Amino acid sequence: MSASNVAKTLEQQEHAFDGAVNLKGDPNCLVGQVSADYQNMVGPFGGVTAATILQAVLGHPEREGMPVSLTINYMGPIEDDELVVKPALLRTNRSNQHWRVDFLQGDVMQCSASCVFAKRNETWSNDEVRMPYAPDFEVVDSLPKFPGMPSWVDQYDMRFVYGAPFQPLVKGKQANPSESLLWISDKPARKLDYASVTAISDSFFPRIFVRRHKIVPMGTVSLTINFHITEDELLGLEATHLLGRASATKFTNGYFEQRAELWSPDGTLVATSSQMVYYKD
Amino acid sequence: MSASNVAKTLEQQEHAFDGAVNLKGDPNCLVGQVSADYQNMVGPFGGVTAATILQAVLGHPEREGMPVSLTINYMGPIEDDELVVKPALLRTNRSNQHWRVDFLQGDVMQCSASCVFAKRNETWSNDEVRMPYAPDFEVVDSLPKFPGMPSWVDQYDMRFVYGAPFQPLVKGKQANPSESLLWISDKPARKLDYASVTAISDSFFPRIFVRRHKIVPMGTVSLTINFHITEDELLGLEATHLLGRASATKFTNGYFEQRAELWSPDGTLVATSSQMVYYKD
Repeated sequence: MSASNVAKTLEQQEHAFDGAVNLKGDPNCLVGQVSADYQNMVGPFGGVTAATILQAVLGHPEREGMPVSLTINYMGPIEDDELVVKPALLRTNRSNQHWRVDFLQGDVMQCSASCVFAKRNETWSNDEVRMPYAPDFEVVDSLPKFPGMPSWVDQYDMRFVYGAPFQPLVKGKQANPSESLLWISDKPARKLDYASVTAISDSFFPRIFVRRHKIVPMGTVSLTINFHITEDELLGLEATHLLGRASATKFTNGYFEQRAELWSPDGTLVATSSQMVYYKD
Repeated sequence: MSASNVAKTLEQQEHAFDGAVNLKGDPNCLVGQVSADYQNMVGPFGGVTAATILQAVLGHPEREGMPVSLTINYMGPIEDDELVVKPALLRTNRSNQHWRVDFLQGDVMQCSASCVFAKRNETWSNDEVRMPYAPDFEVVDSLPKFPGMPSWVDQYDMRFVYGAPFQPLVKGKQANPSESLLWISDKPARKLDYASVTAISDSFFPRIFVRRHKIVPMGTVSLTINFHITEDELLGLEATHLLGRASATKFTNGYFEQRAELWSPDGTLVATSSQMVYYKD
C-alpha cells in the first residue's frame, strides 16, 4: 500500500491502535482505557501499554525532540479498566529531555517508566548491524489464526521467515534456536510512528515459547527500547512492514532476556530492544 | 589468584571500589562522595555511579532477592562533590520487587534509576549466546597507560584480544569495526559481586572511540544492565576476570547504541547491557 493510500485509509476510520493508545485530559494526568482489541493472556499486550506511556510524553506541551530511549517496568497484571498516565519532566538539557512516567489504575502504580527525548542533529553516522537477508514480505505467508490466540496477535500481520512458534528449527538460518525473523505490520496497515514502533518492538512472541515449542506462564518485568531513526526518516517511510529479528541470550532460574531489532525494508535500523521476562517451567 | 587469596587481600585493605560506592546514613536517604579514584573526562565514571545506585538497594533492609535488571538515566554532569541516593520500594510481588532510585546532588536530581530484584528459583535453563573464543587472560597483554587517561581506567586491568581504542581493525575476528573483546577485572583484583559487575558492564570504552580511532565529546544518557547469574553462582566464581564483548548497533544523528556481554571464564553469561550514548562529531 502506498503512503497516500495509507493516509486515505486513516481518514476513513480510526485504527484500533489509535483507539488503544488514546489519552484524554490534563497532560500531567491523562486518562485512558485498556483496549479489548489488544488483550493478551493475562491483561493487555505490553507493547500497547508501552506505546500508551510514550504517547503521554509525545503529546505533552513541554516535550522537545523525539524518543531516544524508553524503559518500562511492569509491576503486576493490568486490569481491564481505566488507566491514568502521569508524565513528569525531570530535566531539559540543551539537546535532550528526561521524563519519568507513572502508569496507574486507581491508587496502584502498575508500571514505572523513564524516557529520554532528544533533538537530533546531523553527525557522522554509520550502521554497524546489517539487516539480515529476508525474502520480500509479499512472498512470505502471514501467520494464520491459531487456537487460544489472544486478541492482540490478530492486530498484526506477522510473516515469519523462520522461528514461528512451534515451528521446527531451520538449520543453517537461525543463529540460535530461540531466534525468529519476520515481517510485521499493523493490521490493517497503519502509517508507522513512534508509538506503533514501540508496540511492534514488543510484538515478538516470548522466546521461551519459540525455544521450547510450548506455552508456559511468563511476563515481562522490564523492557527497554532504543530508537535509531529521526522523525523525518520515520514519517518518510512508505512501507508499513518492518523486518524484525528477535532472540534470547539466556534462560536461567525463572528469567530470560529477549533482544530484538527492527529494520525498514530499505535497511534502516529503526529500533532495538531488550527485555527481562519472568517464566515458570 | 584463588578465592581464598582474594578474600585475604580484602581483609588487609579496603579496595578503592568499596570506597567509591560507600554510602552511609538512613537507608531511604543515603549519603556518599564522588570518588577521585574513578574520575572520567567530565565527572565520575558512569559505571561507579550505576554501582552506587545498585548498592543503595542491595543494602536496603526491605530488599528481597538479587538484581535482574537495572536502568539508569544520566541527566547531566555529576559534580565532584557529596551525593545523595534515595531508593524507594514501589512494589513487592511474590517473587520480585520493583525499585526506583533517585541520585541527587544538592537539590538537583542527576540520575533517575529503576531496578527489578528477584528471588530466582531453579527452572529449565539454557544459554543461547555462547562465549566467544579468547586466549586465556594470562597470555593477553594488559592495556598500558596512555596520555590523558582518566583515573577510572587505571582501576581496571583490561586485556584486549581485539578492538582496543586506536588499534587497527582485525579482519576476520571483529563482527564489525566497533567490536571489542577483552578480559577485564578490578585492579587490584577484587572478588566479583553485583556492584562490581554493574561497574564493569559500563567499563567498555565508548564505541565511537573504537570505531573512529579518535576521542570525541560523548556521554551516556541511558544505560540498562540485565543480570543472568544467581548470588550463589556469582559468589562461587573463583576468577576475578570476566570476558567482555562490546559493539555498536548504529551511530546516527548524535546518538549511538552500545551493547555488551560479560562472561566468566567458565562460559557463564553474567550480565548483558545496552546504552544510548550522545556524541558530537
